[in-house]
Amino acid sequence: MVRFNCDYAEGAHEEILKLMMETNMEQTPGYGADPYSEQARDLIRERCRNQEAEVQFLVGGTQTNLTVISSALRPHQCVIAPETGHINVHETGAIESCGHKVWPIPTEDGKLTAKQIWDAWESHAVNESYEHMVQPKMVYISNPTEIGTIYSRQELEELSKTCRECGLYLFMDGARLAYALTAKENDLDLAAIAQCCDVFYIGGTKVGALFGEAVVITNDTLKEDFRYIMKQKGAMLAKGRLLGIQFIGLLKNDLYFQIGDHANKMAMKLKAAFQEAGCTFLVDSPTNQQFPILPDWVLKELGENYSYSYQERIDEEHSAVRFCTSWATKEKDVDSLIQDFRRILGKNRCV
Amino acid sequence: MVRFNCDYAEGAHEEILKLMMETNMEQTPGYGADPYSEQARDLIRERCRNQEAEVQFLVGGTQTNLTVISSALRPHQCVIAPETGHINVHETGAIESCGHKVWPIPTEDGKLTAKQIWDAWESHAVNESYEHMVQPKMVYISNPTEIGTIYSRQELEELSKTCRECGLYLFMDGARLAYALTAKENDLDLAAIAQCCDVFYIGGTKVGALFGEAVVITNDTLKEDFRYIMKQKGAMLAKGRLLGIQFIGLLKNDLYFQIGDHANKMAMKLKAAFQEAGCTFLVDSPTNQQFPILPDWVLKELGENYSYSYQERIDEEHSAVRFCTSWATKEKDVDSLIQDFRRILGKNRCV
Amino acid sequence: MVRFNCDYAEGAHEEILKLMMETNMEQTPGYGADPYSEQARDLIRERCRNQEAEVQFLVGGTQTNLTVISSALRPHQCVIAPETGHINVHETGAIESCGHKVWPIPTEDGKLTAKQIWDAWESHAVNESYEHMVQPKMVYISNPTEIGTIYSRQELEELSKTCRECGLYLFMDGARLAYALTAKENDLDLAAIAQCCDVFYIGGTKVGALFGEAVVITNDTLKEDFRYIMKQKGAMLAKGRLLGIQFIGLLKNDLYFQIGDHANKMAMKLKAAFQEAGCTFLVDSPTNQQFPILPDWVLKELGENYSYSYQERIDEEHSAVRFCTSWATKEKDVDSLIQDFRRILGKNRCV
Amino acid sequence: MVRFNCDYAEGAHEEILKLMMETNMEQTPGYGADPYSEQARDLIRERCRNQEAEVQFLVGGTQTNLTVISSALRPHQCVIAPETGHINVHETGAIESCGHKVWPIPTEDGKLTAKQIWDAWESHAVNESYEHMVQPKMVYISNPTEIGTIYSRQELEELSKTCRECGLYLFMDGARLAYALTAKENDLDLAAIAQCCDVFYIGGTKVGALFGEAVVITNDTLKEDFRYIMKQKGAMLAKGRLLGIQFIGLLKNDLYFQIGDHANKMAMKLKAAFQEAGCTFLVDSPTNQQFPILPDWVLKELGENYSYSYQERIDEEHSAVRFCTSWATKEKDVDSLIQDFRRILGKNRCV
Repeated sequence: MVRFNCDYAEGAHEEILKLMMETNMEQTPGYGADPYSEQARDLIRERCRNQEAEVQFLVGGTQTNLTVISSALRPHQCVIAPETGHINVHETGAIESCGHKVWPIPTEDGKLTAKQIWDAWESHAVNESYEHMVQPKMVYISNPTEIGTIYSRQELEELSKTCRECGLYLFMDGARLAYALTAKENDLDLAAIAQCCDVFYIGGTKVGALFGEAVVITNDTLKEDFRYIMKQKGAMLAKGRLLGIQFIGLLKNDLYFQIGDHANKMAMKLKAAFQEAGCTFLVDSPTNQQFPILPDWVLKELGENYSYSYQERIDEEHSAVRFCTSWATKEKDVDSLIQDFRRILGKNRCV
Repeated sequence: MVRFNCDYAEGAHEEILKLMMETNMEQTPGYGADPYSEQARDLIRERCRNQEAEVQFLVGGTQTNLTVISSALRPHQCVIAPETGHINVHETGAIESCGHKVWPIPTEDGKLTAKQIWDAWESHAVNESYEHMVQPKMVYISNPTEIGTIYSRQELEELSKTCRECGLYLFMDGARLAYALTAKENDLDLAAIAQCCDVFYIGGTKVGALFGEAVVITNDTLKEDFRYIMKQKGAMLAKGRLLGIQFIGLLKNDLYFQIGDHANKMAMKLKAAFQEAGCTFLVDSPTNQQFPILPDWVLKELGENYSYSYQERIDEEHSAVRFCTSWATKEKDVDSLIQDFRRILGKNRCV
Repeated sequence: MVRFNCDYAEGAHEEILKLMMETNMEQTPGYGADPYSEQARDLIRERCRNQEAEVQFLVGGTQTNLTVISSALRPHQCVIAPETGHINVHETGAIESCGHKVWPIPTEDGKLTAKQIWDAWESHAVNESYEHMVQPKMVYISNPTEIGTIYSRQELEELSKTCRECGLYLFMDGARLAYALTAKENDLDLAAIAQCCDVFYIGGTKVGALFGEAVVITNDTLKEDFRYIMKQKGAMLAKGRLLGIQFIGLLKNDLYFQIGDHANKMAMKLKAAFQEAGCTFLVDSPTNQQFPILPDWVLKELGENYSYSYQERIDEEHSAVRFCTSWATKEKDVDSLIQDFRRILGKNRCV
Repeated sequence: MVRFNCDYAEGAHEEILKLMMETNMEQTPGYGADPYSEQARDLIRERCRNQEAEVQFLVGGTQTNLTVISSALRPHQCVIAPETGHINVHETGAIESCGHKVWPIPTEDGKLTAKQIWDAWESHAVNESYEHMVQPKMVYISNPTEIGTIYSRQELEELSKTCRECGLYLFMDGARLAYALTAKENDLDLAAIAQCCDVFYIGGTKVGALFGEAVVITNDTLKEDFRYIMKQKGAMLAKGRLLGIQFIGLLKNDLYFQIGDHANKMAMKLKAAFQEAGCTFLVDSPTNQQFPILPDWVLKELGENYSYSYQERIDEEHSAVRFCTSWATKEKDVDSLIQDFRRILGKNRCV
């Protein structure tokens, strides 16, 4: 069985493990006050071209989302998110558990537009019962989105502009950021993201680290006492240097982007094979998650040797599923998946 | 200016005020442990034909909703509600503030169906990531709904059956219950509601009381320690007898139902006048809230002497608005509203 | 049975009821946007000599405390309170339910001193693990305290000065404020309180209203969006004018202070009688709550005709109890209590 | 500089790192559904002699405490804890952030007694205002405590018996459990703890793991939906096998207990040296944390080469500090610390 169901099936990239081994017996202060975390912070600030950014390291994505959001909002404020957003669907109500409504906006492709933000904000602002409704104060986006799509520089700049006009914080969940920044049509970089967002994070867990997400806060208001909230939410790792070390490993020699690039290439190879066989897709994704729509009988047979994750039923005979590649995906596994897919499909068509 | 914008523009029905005056200088224990509250509880249990029901009195609707829901759910559980439900729209995130997601289901008419509940529940139960999603545990409905529609006995029984099959609590918000139970096509009564629901409330604020909602809990699990939660949420009135006295006033001689009947008659008179003029409605409501779609220029002129509440824009020239009648609505005011409406409209049509 | 166990055993002062009757059938906007609430706000601002103060009306004390505190604090911040403070003891964890720790400080007499605040604040500020501890941000005091004692002007000014130096909000719970401001040794008034506190409230429930607490916010930061939080916590009364009307009744002709004065006089009469009999007291209270320490056999016999509330066991044969007077206490009831007490005690002594 | 300020200054024990390296490139399911986590669960169930226990792995201590407690309590319920308990002092209000009061009980030695629990419980149960107070439902203890003391089997059994009589859950924080179970006077083992407690955890972070705490739930009620709460609190590690692997490493060959034994021996050596020099201690600790009271001038000089953590001021010239040993403490470092201490002290005395 080869796993394509997610991008966190293995441990860590060997470069990262190596660094952890080498430093294992050193003594350092806890909770992120160590020199490795400092060094990682510097690397990140440099890549973001923002020397004033606050950088903090947390362990996982849900934890990061709930810490950032609960740190930023007052009790009556909500966060606007795409309906498919991770915080709306796959965090067991973590944000609500911190007291805040997630305001879900339906989208075509998992992405929010500046116009949608404006409309949502205005619908609240002009409502005669505005005090009886939650007040929007933050916009949550993911890049890439949960369905693999990415934001262009122009889209992000427009979002940012609108957020600033409306007094909304813009927060980007970058759990898979490497895969967005190395997609073929991408024109964003860390510096542009740091300029557009009030807070975002560079995801490690799904990009070759054992675990770890690096939160970058550029808005001064959001920096205040952020570490208290981390501690309160159980998000301050005792041996914090483990996070610093991993991000040094990811960023020092651009390993982060090499990993993204590799996974995307593997995904594009897979995508091409599905397209060639006449498959349609739930969404046109340029990144490491692909969502082909396949006949159920093909999925069943393919599933004997390759794991994927089930997305949704399309019709009585077809389902959309997700195939993920990652830093750890071997090209030979992609090749054999393609071969087996072709063999199973035979002369049939996907649709 | 005559107010038709809501059903709580005046104080209280004179019968209720009279009772409050008569008992004013008596000394009683606080927090609902007084003989008046006991008497009101007995009256309610009797009407519900359920001698074991726990009855508690709270001050307002949002308070009641958040107290009931936070008392019933564990942290990872959510409440399913119609998208138009009061808890989803008009309570400033009160439920989320207690830690729980409101799972909104789109509806045609503000009402949930048994099938919608089943589908929602099943979509969670069969999902491979079920632990990553909130767990549905309660269904919230309003009767009448926020847009005036009502549940039939069959609809409620089916909802109840499905909820029990799925292990979901059924909770009815009865902020305007009198108006539902006295609608022409209604076939429900308090006893049937008590049998179908695990918990519901009989609203007083919008039906002639100064304030007050009577929560009726029939499910034993939900009875446990309910009063602790009331106190914690600031929902236990010190002079609790004021609530008992008001519900005695409302229920002793069926005043509650007379009030509902009066308001509905006034609303039907208004509805007929709008229909006669060719108006369409946002929804076909048999109760005290009417949602006609009217030309903006008519609304503007009408608004000089009659207040209504703005609902939503329909097209560039028409809006849906809400006219409410209540226990306090005078027939002469309805008549003059109708007359003025006809005069303003003249030979024009509504559409 | 005559009740001395609390100060909210009756309904409302007749002046207040009269005003409610007179205005009952008027139509007004809801939620405190009515002219009566505006008039009451003006009266309060005038008494506080602060034209910029935000004044909002809530229904009860626990509700007010949780609304004010959760509106003011970020998630990692706590409120310092006397160990005997209402929020620490008698609100079923309402403050914690909003996410905040109550930091209890032991006191002799229910009052906090400037030095205690400074020490608490400093113990946090200098701690090397400060981020691992809750951050103090607000100080909660009651005047009179839960055990009847009152703050002098000098004490309050010192508290205020220290709070400002430490960046702490000062919040006064004035559930029984009338009884403090009319105590013999009192040298505070509403204007002084408004100057010293960032937020406080003028209690109505225990001073002759049916219910109602008037929150006065003088600190601009705390004014922002306060009404959203009220709505979210179920603390925005639909028929908000009922609150405005009651505070007009209380303040227009200084009824509030007459009520306080009357109750204190009744309490002093009772206190003198206990003292004369050689009683000691749990605390020396100059206000409407008296805490004599009495032999259990006396309490038992007295309890047959007069209710008091049990405070705590002192030794095997003595208990401290609470006798309250109020706006509604009749002098003849105090006299007969004293007479009966003397008769029961006979030649025995209290100690 | 040699660090004795905490027991988590290094990475992980080499056995654990080795296992992580060996399994690094294997593909497994996420979130703890992998075979390594299963194997670790079996090992733990076996040591606990409880085949029905639910075992779940979390990342850190604060996270574990807040997840366990918020999973167990309803909104109005509180957890009783020693005043020095980690949840009361050093978690930035994590428990309150989940809505629950921590009820602190003063102790001599960081340990709660059965009598204290009974008294606390009874003081609530008999109070006439019981609904106005938080309801105790769980007891939190740490073993060893935050100040190094340990529970005997008899003490734990009595606590357990009382908790069951009162309907309270007993929860043991075992962040440093290895150090308790290998202390010289210890007579507890995992099986006894599993029998006495409703839920407890075996700490890894402070005992040689990179991170990780293994929660053992023996009470069926507390098992229900525990993983939902983990996910909601951000406590479900994506690459969950990392936790399973580490606990295999810790438990397979009793490494966990060897580590505990080593650290305790190092601590006893240090303790003896302090005692020999006439030092007194804040508390008599048989485990890896020692709290000597030392002259400030000695501390200053010692601090140039050895880090400790500051505990509290004793008098104008003395402070209590904490020296920790751990799995990673080298005997030669302890020896040189002792030597330097003796040299610095010279002919002076500690007191």
